[in-house]
Amino acid sequence: MARVVVDVMLKPEILDPQGQAVANALPSLGIGDVSSVRIGKRIEIEFADSADLDRAKEIADRLLANPVIEDFTVRVED
Amino acid sequence: MARVVVDVMLKPEILDPQGQAVANALPSLGIGDVSSVRIGKRIEIEFADSADLDRAKEIADRLLANPVIEDFTVRVED
Amino acid sequence: MARVVVDVMLKPEILDPQGQAVANALPSLGIGDVSSVRIGKRIEIEFADSADLDRAKEIADRLLANPVIEDFTVRVED
Amino acid sequence: MARVVVDVMLKPEILDPQGQAVANALPSLGIGDVSSVRIGKRIEIEFADSADLDRAKEIADRLLANPVIEDFTVRVED
Repeated sequence: MARVVVDVMLKPEILDPQGQAVANALPSLGIGDVSSVRIGKRIEIEFADSADLDRAKEIADRLLANPVIEDFTVRVED
Repeated sequence: MARVVVDVMLKPEILDPQGQAVANALPSLGIGDVSSVRIGKRIEIEFADSADLDRAKEIADRLLANPVIEDFTVRVED
Repeated sequence: MARVVVDVMLKPEILDPQGQAVANALPSLGIGDVSSVRIGKRIEIEFADSADLDRAKEIADRLLANPVIEDFTVRVED
Repeated sequence: MARVVVDVMLKPEILDPQGQAVANALPSLGIGDVSSVRIGKRIEIEFADSADLDRAKEIADRLLANPVIEDFTVRVED
């Protein structure tokens, strides 16, 4: 068993209203030093045998991320 | 500026139907060696000054994760 | 072609921190009369021929909703 | 108390990989007549007094939807 982690985030130039909502809510908790919150996805893929980064990239590219609006990174979890 | 990353995943005993959908779709892409896919959230919090893990934990606990069904981890991004 | 809509919401007793974040952010927009915000999923399923509610329920039950924490409704879109 | 429902969907021309994953998984459940699955958000906003569609539109526009990639509709729930 081996785990690959795919992180999917909206591209920096794409507005993230849900992250904005969290950021806007922070002053009501007394938190004033946060300049930005961005909410993306973290996907954990378990391979039955060894981790396969190429396969994970293909999965991310076809079923997890939209390359027009999102960036993703793929890594074997330490 | 300093970034804290919060990873939020459903607890292992909680079924993740969206991850299951991705896992079930993989054979149609010719991918047969994946045993599990779990989809969670990755949140990037930018602090104006230095990273504040205690603040980030408080944000996660109150606005990002539901402790009944989700686990979260907080770390300063390398 | 016929469309079925599946609405998936967290059960009322399950805390929704993302909805809470939006609710907490509203006073900063000058909005004070909202008592609750809940964020769920809306899924549109297009059937090639006629709408099949039983099929849609099966899809929701197996790939869209977790019955332990979520409720769903299925309807043919008007 | 009055409830407003906001439906947020990716614009039709924007690829929805999570919906695609569900669609690709359906043949493995023996379901062959679905041509498309799209996954969006459904938000329920409870107003303390009467439903305020203009307020709900403002909330959607600023904290729920990204107008570059998403469309939303706002309605008072029947």
